[in-house]
Amino acid sequence: MENLSTPDTVMNSPISVNGTAAVRTSVRVVKRRVAGAVSGPAETDFLAIEDPLEIELAGTRRPGDGGGTRMVTMRTPGHDAELIHGFLYCEGIIRAAADVVAIEFSEPVGEAPPTRVRLRLRDGLASRAASEVGRSFAVHSACGVCGTSSLARLALAPSLRVDDAVRVDAGVFHGFPARMHREQATFRQTGGLHAAAVFTPDGALVVSREDIGRHNALDKALGAELLAGRLPTSGRILCVSGRMSYEIMQKALVARIPVVAGVGAPSSLAVSLANDFNVTLIGFLRGGSYNIYSAPERVSCK
Amino acid sequence: MENLSTPDTVMNSPISVNGTAAVRTSVRVVKRRVAGAVSGPAETDFLAIEDPLEIELAGTRRPGDGGGTRMVTMRTPGHDAELIHGFLYCEGIIRAAADVVAIEFSEPVGEAPPTRVRLRLRDGLASRAASEVGRSFAVHSACGVCGTSSLARLALAPSLRVDDAVRVDAGVFHGFPARMHREQATFRQTGGLHAAAVFTPDGALVVSREDIGRHNALDKALGAELLAGRLPTSGRILCVSGRMSYEIMQKALVARIPVVAGVGAPSSLAVSLANDFNVTLIGFLRGGSYNIYSAPERVSCK
Repeated sequence: MENLSTPDTVMNSPISVNGTAAVRTSVRVVKRRVAGAVSGPAETDFLAIEDPLEIELAGTRRPGDGGGTRMVTMRTPGHDAELIHGFLYCEGIIRAAADVVAIEFSEPVGEAPPTRVRLRLRDGLASRAASEVGRSFAVHSACGVCGTSSLARLALAPSLRVDDAVRVDAGVFHGFPARMHREQATFRQTGGLHAAAVFTPDGALVVSREDIGRHNALDKALGAELLAGRLPTSGRILCVSGRMSYEIMQKALVARIPVVAGVGAPSSLAVSLANDFNVTLIGFLRGGSYNIYSAPERVSCK
Repeated sequence: MENLSTPDTVMNSPISVNGTAAVRTSVRVVKRRVAGAVSGPAETDFLAIEDPLEIELAGTRRPGDGGGTRMVTMRTPGHDAELIHGFLYCEGIIRAAADVVAIEFSEPVGEAPPTRVRLRLRDGLASRAASEVGRSFAVHSACGVCGTSSLARLALAPSLRVDDAVRVDAGVFHGFPARMHREQATFRQTGGLHAAAVFTPDGALVVSREDIGRHNALDKALGAELLAGRLPTSGRILCVSGRMSYEIMQKALVARIPVVAGVGAPSSLAVSLANDFNVTLIGFLRGGSYNIYSAPERVSCK
């Protein structure tokens, strides 16, 4: 066989990000399809973009250190501002969009997405964020507790317990995955992205975001809600395309979401948290059925 | 509905870890199954355990700091020593199992898995590990580049390029997912775990490990290979149950694995790395077919 090509930079499915720019979320590659032991010809395919974004937090180093605390996230480009807002909110570093005073992306080079962003937070927030003992200011495409350095820091405040009295008809959940999927332009093209969406109890979609990382998709969706002035929320349902583990539940709790549903399996810790904090947790949502693991009184069955 | 119960501590599918102890990898919970809008009765189900492990690296703080650098990983208990060895090897911190001088797990409490482990590395390695600029010594169930603080640190050494001349018959790959699945006792019970396995070119399984985190499953499999004295390897094939992104490729490269296959989609960056470092990358391995994205000359087709 001849060599297959490296991903090129053709723009596919450009999307508008915060109304300012079109961003590539997939690239074209050349692949060969093998069926049984027989190889087909070289042909074009599309892959979801995984691309690093370096984030600098201004004002977080002591004089002489130069620059601010930096971190790198692997993400699918697009909705980067939402990603950053959602992450900072879920980490408890900001409480409102206005806490981010400035957010400056590096100049795009041709059609390439930004590779660097510099953040300036409201006075006091940045240093508090950076000085948290044992917690590096790190975020990653597949990671919600990056840099956590001790067991104690994983404990969640009892005040996060959810007392939301919302009720949801049992049949409403079945439509969520397909509705979310309709928003996933890049997934349809590549088969390689996670999604997270917020719904109302009557099944209306509020926001849906996709990313190569589960946590990024959720941070983007919650960042969009924050920027719209809708966090903390109430009476909303979160739906995720994959499995549910500690960090999905942690983010949902901070956003005050009372019902969390996922297409995949929950972890033991997700169910423990759901019970402890009174979140209704639904798993294996597919094929017309699902499991309820906690707080079932919010689901109105026949 | 009555309240559903929190996960209990019944031991399920106990496994022997390094010949020393049986470890729970799943817990029993009570759930309700909803079909359409009709709820079934409360019934027992099993979930994969997600549980934090705090790892302390002895000798990594300056005098007076007290204790060593610590980190927390969320993992499915079991094969913890392999997990730690594999992670340290893939990070370039150790080169052989003997570089870990001591590894002391906390005493189990009842049937609970260890929650803390203290590592002592060969002289010089620990301080080098902890002093790496901008890299926190962090590991997580779903994260391979945790704590990375600048784009430059994601670059891989050109010397990692793979020149392995192994050839694999095209038909051999189709059997990998099912073979890997047969080793996944906890996945069969819970539906919630990732797997990573090493195969020979004639399709024989070398080692297979499962974990709630993709990277952990791979670290466990590679840690097992390291402890068996088989790293760096040659002529081996890595198979993973999910998607393939930067950090899966990074770990495979450090272990010198020339062929990487996955049931899911690769990211753009995984294909870029595969091309740049001459790794044969195979994706969407399911249903009797797959895609080859790079270095197809290692696959012998009809």
